[in-house]
Amino acid sequence: MENLQRMTVNTIRVLSAEAIDKANSGHPGLPLGCAGIGYSLFAEHMTHNPKNADFYNRDRFVLSAGHGSMLLYSLLHIFGYGMTMEDLKNFRQLGSPAAGHPEYGHAKGIETSTGPLGQGIANAVGMAVAETMMAARFNREGFPLVDHYTYVLCGDGCMMEGIEYEAASLAGHWKLGKLIAVYDRNKITIEGSTDMAFTEDVGKRHEAQGWQVIKVDSGEDLSALSRAVKRAKKETQKPSLIIVSTRIGEGSPKAGSAETHGAPLGAEAVAQMKRDMGWKLPPFTVPDEVTAHVQRLQKKFSGYERKWKRLVKSYKAEYPAEYETFIRYTKGDYAALTNEQSLWEKGAKPDATRNSSGVILNKLAKLAPNMVGGAADLAPSTKTYLKDMGDYSADDRLGRNLHFGIREHAMAAITNGIRLHGGLISYCATFFVFSDYMKNSIRMSALMGLPVVYVLTHDSIGVGEDGPTHQPVEQLSALRTIPGIKVFRPADLRETAAAYISALTGRQPTAVVCSRQNLVQLNNSGAEALKGGYIAYGGDEKPEVILMATGSEVGLALESAKALEKDGTAVRVVSMPCLELFDRQPKAYRDKILPPSVTKRVAIEAGSRGLWYKYTGLKGAVIGIDSFGTSGPADKLMVEFGFTPDNVVKTVKELA
Amino acid sequence: MENLQRMTVNTIRVLSAEAIDKANSGHPGLPLGCAGIGYSLFAEHMTHNPKNADFYNRDRFVLSAGHGSMLLYSLLHIFGYGMTMEDLKNFRQLGSPAAGHPEYGHAKGIETSTGPLGQGIANAVGMAVAETMMAARFNREGFPLVDHYTYVLCGDGCMMEGIEYEAASLAGHWKLGKLIAVYDRNKITIEGSTDMAFTEDVGKRHEAQGWQVIKVDSGEDLSALSRAVKRAKKETQKPSLIIVSTRIGEGSPKAGSAETHGAPLGAEAVAQMKRDMGWKLPPFTVPDEVTAHVQRLQKKFSGYERKWKRLVKSYKAEYPAEYETFIRYTKGDYAALTNEQSLWEKGAKPDATRNSSGVILNKLAKLAPNMVGGAADLAPSTKTYLKDMGDYSADDRLGRNLHFGIREHAMAAITNGIRLHGGLISYCATFFVFSDYMKNSIRMSALMGLPVVYVLTHDSIGVGEDGPTHQPVEQLSALRTIPGIKVFRPADLRETAAAYISALTGRQPTAVVCSRQNLVQLNNSGAEALKGGYIAYGGDEKPEVILMATGSEVGLALESAKALEKDGTAVRVVSMPCLELFDRQPKAYRDKILPPSVTKRVAIEAGSRGLWYKYTGLKGAVIGIDSFGTSGPADKLMVEFGFTPDNVVKTVKELA
Repeated sequence: MENLQRMTVNTIRVLSAEAIDKANSGHPGLPLGCAGIGYSLFAEHMTHNPKNADFYNRDRFVLSAGHGSMLLYSLLHIFGYGMTMEDLKNFRQLGSPAAGHPEYGHAKGIETSTGPLGQGIANAVGMAVAETMMAARFNREGFPLVDHYTYVLCGDGCMMEGIEYEAASLAGHWKLGKLIAVYDRNKITIEGSTDMAFTEDVGKRHEAQGWQVIKVDSGEDLSALSRAVKRAKKETQKPSLIIVSTRIGEGSPKAGSAETHGAPLGAEAVAQMKRDMGWKLPPFTVPDEVTAHVQRLQKKFSGYERKWKRLVKSYKAEYPAEYETFIRYTKGDYAALTNEQSLWEKGAKPDATRNSSGVILNKLAKLAPNMVGGAADLAPSTKTYLKDMGDYSADDRLGRNLHFGIREHAMAAITNGIRLHGGLISYCATFFVFSDYMKNSIRMSALMGLPVVYVLTHDSIGVGEDGPTHQPVEQLSALRTIPGIKVFRPADLRETAAAYISALTGRQPTAVVCSRQNLVQLNNSGAEALKGGYIAYGGDEKPEVILMATGSEVGLALESAKALEKDGTAVRVVSMPCLELFDRQPKAYRDKILPPSVTKRVAIEAGSRGLWYKYTGLKGAVIGIDSFGTSGPADKLMVEFGFTPDNVVKTVKELA
Repeated sequence: MENLQRMTVNTIRVLSAEAIDKANSGHPGLPLGCAGIGYSLFAEHMTHNPKNADFYNRDRFVLSAGHGSMLLYSLLHIFGYGMTMEDLKNFRQLGSPAAGHPEYGHAKGIETSTGPLGQGIANAVGMAVAETMMAARFNREGFPLVDHYTYVLCGDGCMMEGIEYEAASLAGHWKLGKLIAVYDRNKITIEGSTDMAFTEDVGKRHEAQGWQVIKVDSGEDLSALSRAVKRAKKETQKPSLIIVSTRIGEGSPKAGSAETHGAPLGAEAVAQMKRDMGWKLPPFTVPDEVTAHVQRLQKKFSGYERKWKRLVKSYKAEYPAEYETFIRYTKGDYAALTNEQSLWEKGAKPDATRNSSGVILNKLAKLAPNMVGGAADLAPSTKTYLKDMGDYSADDRLGRNLHFGIREHAMAAITNGIRLHGGLISYCATFFVFSDYMKNSIRMSALMGLPVVYVLTHDSIGVGEDGPTHQPVEQLSALRTIPGIKVFRPADLRETAAAYISALTGRQPTAVVCSRQNLVQLNNSGAEALKGGYIAYGGDEKPEVILMATGSEVGLALESAKALEKDGTAVRVVSMPCLELFDRQPKAYRDKILPPSVTKRVAIEAGSRGLWYKYTGLKGAVIGIDSFGTSGPADKLMVEFGFTPDNVVKTVKELA
């Protein structure tokens, strides 16, 4: 290492150790061990412009091993991204942008929220996919409008997670030559040496998955690192994995010990580390030489953007229509969809909402040409195939249908990555019960506020013969309780349209939960569904009984209402396709739909009862399912589990 | 194939196709494509005894590709496991043991429930681990009491799932030489050819993971299959993957087409298939030659068990103490634990329930010597290490601590597999938020009624600085709504004891959800906690206000009660460590604890509010968290999110 390099690398180490010690909380192991890698990428290899972090054609950098957040924060500070020294001093404190794990949107230069291991690399795969897609759509001979690398830094933990395997398999299959993963191989995890649990040949495994694998013997050897990155860039047909042997906590007296993974080094060890480095500056100080060094680099960085802007300018002159489209893609404003009449047409006949979903999705695909997505090998069942829109592959980056294979978890995180990249709208699909396999990635969509769409079909015991492993019961509750997600369970075609319109015009993820079986078309569904709950039957007059239901049970509620009316009971049916949106309505609206004085309330939904008591109160009743389903024809199961007008009527009559 | 082999293989095909056609639902592709593999294993390789399917030393067979259930049912019928022809005729009908996917406990010979892809192979890894553990504990020179293989049949779908990768990595690491996976490589999935999404070199990947890989060019070549299985058995230091090239729907005119995966062949194709085979029997008929052939095999099968029983007899004579222990292990009755006073001791000082959990777990490890388990690289944080009990590895099968690495999903499914094998009690552990990564495997524990224990620590924003990616919010709701699970969130040491005692004496999985931070010891916790909810403060007299809480919030409720009492308000504090058990109490008990006439109710829990309205009603209030947490010191977060006596008092006073 040259002197200035070493000094900057040591600055990363010192700032990281100091911030973690001050917070008395954090993970010094990775920031110290990977300081050289971070420096190398930020100073020498990445096309980026810290002064305008969002510059579209930048290389993306993902810290998949999110616990090493101080590495990123130190880099963002030193390289002038706007992360202040004050922020570093407030590492892990309430309100600080330097949060425990990197959080998307909290500071410039954080490309994605990471922490749950393995997801970062899948996000990076999504970004690399998006790059190929945008490049294929907009680049023209001599105009490489979109042309950048995606870097991701992973630890041993990422490499062990199944999602990394899934994502790597797809990255190799898709020949993502501009994806460069750096694997911080320090061979230490929380329980000790990786020899205890992780002895596979990671390089060979990635080769089997279609990757180029490059080894670097020491994270301190910056020239070897540089050679490796250059080799990675040269390989255009395979993603590259650079396996770098490092020492966890490098530079500190505790280097090599599992202790450094997740606990502050302590004042003594920090002091010792500084002595060993010959470091004489007060805490939280960047040496002047380093400041000057980075200052000089800024010219290079801003040059990257200037050059690109010039390119854009001439592109605009040469390809004005394409330029307009590019702007529309990157802006991605679909507010006008709400008024798109073709989406609000009433369904002609009873139909499964998975079919309705397919209809709306295909209409949207035309209205929103930057929408891409796919299923975990279930496009024919989930009806999520975009007709005549091509299949994405290494040979066709224009294809809009992604074939994720049977890899739900990576699918969701890749979908997040595509959206994070900018320029595209993304969705993914599988059977509702297998939302379990991707639960945490759905959670991450919500945490980041990414308006991705999850199409989840086969939504209840209505699945029928496949039986309890394939029949969702608690999944509605599991998703609804994720903060900041919208879960739509539409009852018909127009409610399905509402779900998608809400999804594309909002700033949060949406789950569109659809039936396998046919459902009736409601008479008065439509834009009201955007309020989450509305009167589907019974008019404005105050009823004696309220039946509330979602999806496949709205039809049952309507039938039951008619049966109850025969006895002269005034019944209101409330369709509640999205509880989260209903809860967000003004109290006056909610009280209008569910008048507090009406205590005879029955909620009907073929799933867990628990969340419905909030709407029925202790005096109401919930017709739901708190046990597993069973294998059998769907119509028989519905009877077996009490989803009949008779049982609804009986339940109403038993109410006090 | 010899004539009798072929005839039996064709019988499997015909029965499977007929049953699926009669049900008008099911997946013929695999049963037809793998009929030869199934026959080969059941007739020629497996040590089993259909007449006593539970014979302990049997080889295990797991159909990981559970959608191919008719393969298993046909085999169980033909080989005399007790699956009747009537059952096959009722395939996928309400109440039939021949359910859509194989369901554990529904029929003899079903070793585990499968369907969610990839989990079966992880279950099989667990069974193979259990075999090595039981063998190490009980086998003596000349007495191989436990000595069997575990077979698992996987499809392309299993191979793509991340959990398969995780499980395979562990299997190779643990050198599970008696695990034999057969990979039905038909190269077809629902969306079409695997070329669309799955082009990795699966064999090379498994070699990288420490497996022996054997290829068989055709699933119809039974002698090649036999040679492969023999080679697999010969390799004792590595698990074996036998990659068998097959044709999906083999034997039918639709062979090779994705159509055959998940839809009945239809009468015409079935008829054509039978004509091609020269099949002249009426539907649902086993040829007499096949019946006679299997009859002859039964002698071999029952011989396996007879031989083993002789071995057990002489073992008992030679090693009476070990024999007694073996019986105790396989019986696994721990009902007496409830009265074990050493478990019910009051905690001496405030402590984190993760520490309490560690204390109880270590006490139990002595009382229940067949308990084994481990964490996903978080034993030091989850406090789940069993002291002085050794580490399980290829070199030490006696070790009781498993190091799962950072592989949550496989961990859970392996834990299920260990329990399914029989002889051992199993637990696993990680941070609560990462229960998301293993949600579906937890669900499978519940569906199968397996009393495994999930130790889930760092249970709320109390995690502090790690921030929202590591702070559970909705996870309590996600788990509580899984049918048939018990979710304990203990408030102190004795409630933690209750959680474990309930876990070990019940027939369902238990999640023990623990705090990172210190909690007070309650005065009257203890066996009452086994009722799920009890009066922790305020005596039997009817109160004006009820505060209910779990875990870390019970202490807050107690503090708040004292503050409220200053104004003369009579307050009851109800600790509700397990809602599921509370709901199961007689109405009289529930009404005693939560008198219906008391409507001033406040529930306090640092998690999603939704499920609590069932207990508070519309007039009560819930102090909870429906947003994500944030990074900061835990005590400050608790104030920020309203978990203070002041806020509780204020909330109570605002109640109507």
